[in-house]
Amino acid sequence: MLMDEFLRAADEVCGAGFVVAGPAIEPRYLQPARYAAGQAAALVRPSTTAQVAALVKLCARHELILVPQGAHTGLVQAGTPTDASMHVLLTTERLREVFEFDPLDRTLRVSAGYRLSEVNERLAAHGLWFPIDLSADPSIGGMLAHNTGGTRMLRYGDVRANTLALTAVLGEGQVLHLGRGLQKDNAGLALQHLLVGSSGALGLITEATLKLHPLPRQQASALIAPASLEAVMPLYQRAMAGELAGMVSAFEGMSAAALQAALHLRGDPGRLFGGQLPAYALLLELSSELPAASLDLHALLQRWLECEFEAGAVVDAVLGADDTVWSLRHGISEGLREQGRVIGFDLSLPRRHFMRMRELAGAWLGAEFPQALVADFGHLGDGGMHCNLVWPKSAPPLDNEQMARLRSGIYAICADLGGSFSAEHGIGPSLQADYRALTEPAVLRLSGQVESLFDPRQTLGLTSFGPVWKSVL
Amino acid sequence: MLMDEFLRAADEVCGAGFVVAGPAIEPRYLQPARYAAGQAAALVRPSTTAQVAALVKLCARHELILVPQGAHTGLVQAGTPTDASMHVLLTTERLREVFEFDPLDRTLRVSAGYRLSEVNERLAAHGLWFPIDLSADPSIGGMLAHNTGGTRMLRYGDVRANTLALTAVLGEGQVLHLGRGLQKDNAGLALQHLLVGSSGALGLITEATLKLHPLPRQQASALIAPASLEAVMPLYQRAMAGELAGMVSAFEGMSAAALQAALHLRGDPGRLFGGQLPAYALLLELSSELPAASLDLHALLQRWLECEFEAGAVVDAVLGADDTVWSLRHGISEGLREQGRVIGFDLSLPRRHFMRMRELAGAWLGAEFPQALVADFGHLGDGGMHCNLVWPKSAPPLDNEQMARLRSGIYAICADLGGSFSAEHGIGPSLQADYRALTEPAVLRLSGQVESLFDPRQTLGLTSFGPVWKSVL
Repeated sequence: MLMDEFLRAADEVCGAGFVVAGPAIEPRYLQPARYAAGQAAALVRPSTTAQVAALVKLCARHELILVPQGAHTGLVQAGTPTDASMHVLLTTERLREVFEFDPLDRTLRVSAGYRLSEVNERLAAHGLWFPIDLSADPSIGGMLAHNTGGTRMLRYGDVRANTLALTAVLGEGQVLHLGRGLQKDNAGLALQHLLVGSSGALGLITEATLKLHPLPRQQASALIAPASLEAVMPLYQRAMAGELAGMVSAFEGMSAAALQAALHLRGDPGRLFGGQLPAYALLLELSSELPAASLDLHALLQRWLECEFEAGAVVDAVLGADDTVWSLRHGISEGLREQGRVIGFDLSLPRRHFMRMRELAGAWLGAEFPQALVADFGHLGDGGMHCNLVWPKSAPPLDNEQMARLRSGIYAICADLGGSFSAEHGIGPSLQADYRALTEPAVLRLSGQVESLFDPRQTLGLTSFGPVWKSVL
Repeated sequence: MLMDEFLRAADEVCGAGFVVAGPAIEPRYLQPARYAAGQAAALVRPSTTAQVAALVKLCARHELILVPQGAHTGLVQAGTPTDASMHVLLTTERLREVFEFDPLDRTLRVSAGYRLSEVNERLAAHGLWFPIDLSADPSIGGMLAHNTGGTRMLRYGDVRANTLALTAVLGEGQVLHLGRGLQKDNAGLALQHLLVGSSGALGLITEATLKLHPLPRQQASALIAPASLEAVMPLYQRAMAGELAGMVSAFEGMSAAALQAALHLRGDPGRLFGGQLPAYALLLELSSELPAASLDLHALLQRWLECEFEAGAVVDAVLGADDTVWSLRHGISEGLREQGRVIGFDLSLPRRHFMRMRELAGAWLGAEFPQALVADFGHLGDGGMHCNLVWPKSAPPLDNEQMARLRSGIYAICADLGGSFSAEHGIGPSLQADYRALTEPAVLRLSGQVESLFDPRQTLGLTSFGPVWKSVL
């Protein structure tokens, strides 16, 4: 009854055909990539900021929870509604009002519904890009809501560092314009940076002004077999501060298990490293905006690798076609899923403790969960570690209590080393309990108070940054 | 009486000799660089975060206002107390507990009282720096409180982009640790970024973890006379996106009046540009972490200038000893002060409207305040414009009403072009009224509410981000 009233009113806001009642929602809106399917009372598909504002007001009035969804590629369940009577799913896919490119400012004002790939295809003709590199193809709104990092963050920074302004709808339907889209602006509190990474809990971002960067004119990549685990960090150090300084655009690490899973998936016709996989392999990428006539990156990388080979730090390297090298890196996740159930951890560590984390986690798992295969990989260059485990299909599945013990065990080791339990996926229902357990009480309290200012009735999203979880209310 | 009680209690907190009653305060704490001297009820000089917390609590209890002061180099009067009975001045100069350098993470955990120059002197031996370049030598705490920008922001970003964590004391004396000092971390709301640029109104920053960068191995600079005003932006565009892309570390602009003032101050033995000063001169600096053997920046810059000369965009250039070129740039402010009273505007503009701002401001001033000499200069590369005017000593001084009209006139032109009235100096008492007039009411209200969560009794600082100015309460 109430829902009928909501559906009618929403129909008036969005126009006919853009509001769908629960049972008729297409599966793609409810089925996330790596989790169980959800459910919702309704799906709404607005096309303007004003429509979003009207829908937020409607939800507030009907005491419904509005769940924003971008491209539905997130990994923390923030975009998947789970309640067939209370949750209204709002997809941002039709928010495509604005695409204003400014070549002189190198900025792009863009609606939340555009996808990263579309944005970069359009910008390529101008020699520019939004340099966040991910395995997925999220929407711009989703990227801001989760402050995605990716493989090239060590050169370009995260989404926040490349966001100059945004428009958001707060929990009572107020539309806020934050920032002016300028490169330099200090005319008030940086409220826009609070919304970046807030998982939609503070406001629904409908539009943003992004800082663009020149496309590199050349890149050179190598897959490297270091001589030992001990050689890894010194290699990193020499790459970042030595002859390659300023040129490194990615420095990724892969455990042998992760690399093997990717090779299994992609095939290994050339017998990588002569079949001798190192315990930990590295992917090093250089980029430069300079043409090869001014600086030959390929030659630079080759010289550096030869020196490291002679010094005994590197035993083998494939200096290669960029596609091959990256195709392996991007094949890891899928490769691992073929081998069993993947239990993912999106950790971040001080670089000095990065290898120690691997060591301690491996030892603890060996004692407590010996069937778990540690297949970590990730962004060593910025301390990001996808500390993924594969639970073999042959082993009895973990029950909830075991899973909770496993997760809190890994998080405890990470926290002891000064690390973070969420590097680049943000916070959502799947990390909500961990967030509450691992955040300082004073920070939790203040964050909850801040959230209450933006969304006093808890109308927005499935995440809460305060001491009490939304869905508990 | 009450003050005696406060002084005794503060003495116990800081230790003998580190609390000074109003009349005995040394002038340097009360005399800012460019404004009239202030006054205070007391000066306190704590050396630890715990002492700061105790002092904030004391001030809250006695209903005093605590005014934080770093190196007292700010330009918005945020660090100068003005009330002999209510204002307690807290200098951060003794906050020097922590200086923890991590070479592998390239981070520095540092107390607020260190100066920028000290930090960079200590880091130079490790080939690293905190790359914020300013004419002044502020404290680290002051830099965070105002999110300073400077000349090299177009390459390295602002202070916020290079801040990984901070410790702050909030308005009721709570100590908050925000962020973990990691490169990548998305485990909650980014409250630390709210404190950066908050002028001490949300919390007193006692410590920060900074992101460091490799020192350039080479630099090359040129002072350039463009062929015309119209040639300036295309030159900028070709530098940033063409052959020099990725190498530009500063792109500054100087009006003829600004350049003349600097030449007058520093002397012009070589007759710059053969005595033919352009209407607008440019300072272009390239930097690279690569050694000259890999890439010769000086040659690269020379080639680029020759091409631009042949293409008719550049008429003259001094490709020079970096010191000479920068010494002129840094001599502008002092040079202008010798010529009269400087009325400063710290504007930021979309780059596409940068030259238009100069044009419109010049025309408006010519009609309304013809005695004003427009001597703008600044960070063209990131849209920052120190739109400074010199009011000649010979002209009758402006009264308050005239000054208000002049300021609001310039700000109105800037706002019409989508610009900001505070690029890099932050907000303080001298910009408080402008902030209130030029900020969207909804943003003003929300900012005030956020501020109230951090500092409910308005104990901290002389700035307020809400609709009501602190000192009015």
